[in-house]
Amino acid sequence: MSAPKGNVLIGQSGGPTHVINQSLVGLVETARSSAGVENVWGTLHGFKGVLDEQFVDLGAERADVLETVAQTPGAALRSVRKKPTREECERALSVLRRYDVRYFFYIGGNDSAETAHILASIAADIGYELFVYHVPKTIDNDLRGTDHCPGYASAARYVASCFLGDNVDVRSLPGIKINVVMGRNAGWLTAASVLARTHLDDGPHLVYVPETAFDPYEFVTAVDSVYKRLGRCIVAVSEGVHDAQGRLFAESKEVDSHGNVQLSGSGALGDKLAALLKSQLGEKLRVRADTFGYAQRSYFGAASPVDAAEAREVGRLAARAALSREALCGTLSIVRESNAPYRVSFRRNELALVARETRPMEASLLAGPHDVALPFLDYLRPLVGDLPRPARLSDLPVARR
Amino acid sequence: MSAPKGNVLIGQSGGPTHVINQSLVGLVETARSSAGVENVWGTLHGFKGVLDEQFVDLGAERADVLETVAQTPGAALRSVRKKPTREECERALSVLRRYDVRYFFYIGGNDSAETAHILASIAADIGYELFVYHVPKTIDNDLRGTDHCPGYASAARYVASCFLGDNVDVRSLPGIKINVVMGRNAGWLTAASVLARTHLDDGPHLVYVPETAFDPYEFVTAVDSVYKRLGRCIVAVSEGVHDAQGRLFAESKEVDSHGNVQLSGSGALGDKLAALLKSQLGEKLRVRADTFGYAQRSYFGAASPVDAAEAREVGRLAARAALSREALCGTLSIVRESNAPYRVSFRRNELALVARETRPMEASLLAGPHDVALPFLDYLRPLVGDLPRPARLSDLPVARR
Repeated sequence: MSAPKGNVLIGQSGGPTHVINQSLVGLVETARSSAGVENVWGTLHGFKGVLDEQFVDLGAERADVLETVAQTPGAALRSVRKKPTREECERALSVLRRYDVRYFFYIGGNDSAETAHILASIAADIGYELFVYHVPKTIDNDLRGTDHCPGYASAARYVASCFLGDNVDVRSLPGIKINVVMGRNAGWLTAASVLARTHLDDGPHLVYVPETAFDPYEFVTAVDSVYKRLGRCIVAVSEGVHDAQGRLFAESKEVDSHGNVQLSGSGALGDKLAALLKSQLGEKLRVRADTFGYAQRSYFGAASPVDAAEAREVGRLAARAALSREALCGTLSIVRESNAPYRVSFRRNELALVARETRPMEASLLAGPHDVALPFLDYLRPLVGDLPRPARLSDLPVARR
Repeated sequence: MSAPKGNVLIGQSGGPTHVINQSLVGLVETARSSAGVENVWGTLHGFKGVLDEQFVDLGAERADVLETVAQTPGAALRSVRKKPTREECERALSVLRRYDVRYFFYIGGNDSAETAHILASIAADIGYELFVYHVPKTIDNDLRGTDHCPGYASAARYVASCFLGDNVDVRSLPGIKINVVMGRNAGWLTAASVLARTHLDDGPHLVYVPETAFDPYEFVTAVDSVYKRLGRCIVAVSEGVHDAQGRLFAESKEVDSHGNVQLSGSGALGDKLAALLKSQLGEKLRVRADTFGYAQRSYFGAASPVDAAEAREVGRLAARAALSREALCGTLSIVRESNAPYRVSFRRNELALVARETRPMEASLLAGPHDVALPFLDYLRPLVGDLPRPARLSDLPVARR
């Protein structure tokens, strides 16, 4: 006996990525070709759209539109940063019930997994059959229980490309260059800068991640040492670097509804680090700080092909897992089967595994106070794919006259 | 009777561009296949390398290395920001003489043209036959006597791509987004952000350039108006915006050897504008400011094909102009012959035309206090080439229940 037909609702949440719409389209194409599905809808601005009943019909969307949407960064369904209360989750569930939504997919990070988890538990409590699946995405790569997260490799590709540019730029006009990279709790994206190292003296020469306590004195000393040796120094630093007590180096007053302090969209940390270097090493030093902006997650043309394909696949597989009705809820994880050739498998995981907690870089991937270890390169390279190779002149000497 | 053979020396100066090495390679390939040339050398760090006699042999460089160097951003010969004194120019000339340099090419902006101009005049004064050519490059597009400058279109492409990303990003998570773009004296690069407008409500919604006096009150009012209408607002603002008296909105203390105040490599302007909006429109507003960094001139993969080809061509033509010995000095200018199809010609211009003064955007290219006029789009589009087209869902409505 086949199950009664139900409606599918898909939402996107949190900061967008280059490939978040690949997951959306993977969900839509799988769901709308499934016999158990009546309608495939999207909720605008994620959870907010559920409360406001702002739904759009994705089942009727043209296939060619979906395909171009898949290749566009940003959240096509629009996104939201919202940690709903228990009461809001109950209201949301009454909306889902009224619309006969039996499959809810939430594309997002660990906060979205937590929301999905709460919705699933309320549905179970009241005896409403609802399949709730979280579809992972985050440029931060900080979800637990997965080898890596869709969205990360493309952001890593952008960051590495920026550092490739900085290597040739700072070699042209020497000085100290600090680049502040997104990553509140984990250094994955900052660490990706090391892919820009092509020649022996290329940067980033120093890499500071939140996994290691940031010591301003060590920082000044390390920059000074590189600068004296090479005549230039390129530094990658996570926006979330903090001291051993967890105090951020550059504190901001603004806090979002998740209780997270605003770090992006401000040049404060970079400027503060630059000022520190000048005060300690000399005001005449050429020190510049760039704070990488939203381009890290939305620059057109940065998508990694592996990332795009995997983001599509987790969407498809989440739809299949839910529509096969084998488990009421879950998330999709990526398992690395082999590095050369690069091969992964996907598996369903429990929501509780991903919700709330984040995954920092393991100690085995880091080396000392300001660098990554070699295994990180093996981990990252196949995800990001080939990068442009900066060429140098041979500097063939001319005899003095 | 053929002229005696002499040596060629090439230097790069000022901020690098995506295509500055195309000009270098255009010069090298033309010069080294010329009968009148003994050696083709490069000077490391431009004028500084002349004083220090830091030369490299470009004539012996492999062709395949040159080709990959041409495609690499940054100044392959390394660059310098230096406004030499008269005495330094005289010393430089004695070096050139000692090395029998008869052709000196300086790839740079208006400051480099001025240096070339001084060198040419000293050579004439002392009766040393020296052909001195300036080869234009600048992402700022602010050289006089030319339709546009090699380097500009690729930087414009990067800036437009960032705004394409911001359009989908800020539509996902609405708020006010300020992007600070390079451009000390001229708004050309900031104005290029308008290429990101694809849909009717796309940004940048407001464009502030140094050609128009910046009025903080007008800025706050305009942002408020767009935000009330669309629920979001994306602003492009030049780092060099200033009031009617020429005072920069965000002043810095650091001054380079040209007397230019440091603007880039600091988030001060963006943060100050964001703070102004919050103080006037509400502290709870989501306001973010990104200061576009060195990626504007060095991001790998942003080069415009038209720009790359033209940068190569000005190098070739400068070499031909000098080596044909028709005029002792000059610079290369681009003349636009036709817009559709896009077609340009090149001509030699006098150094004095390009030296010192810069070229702001003409009034006919601007509209009101915060936008460009349509002729600017006709001017810019063929230089930058096709950009990715962001796709949106159709937002087909779902009936309320």
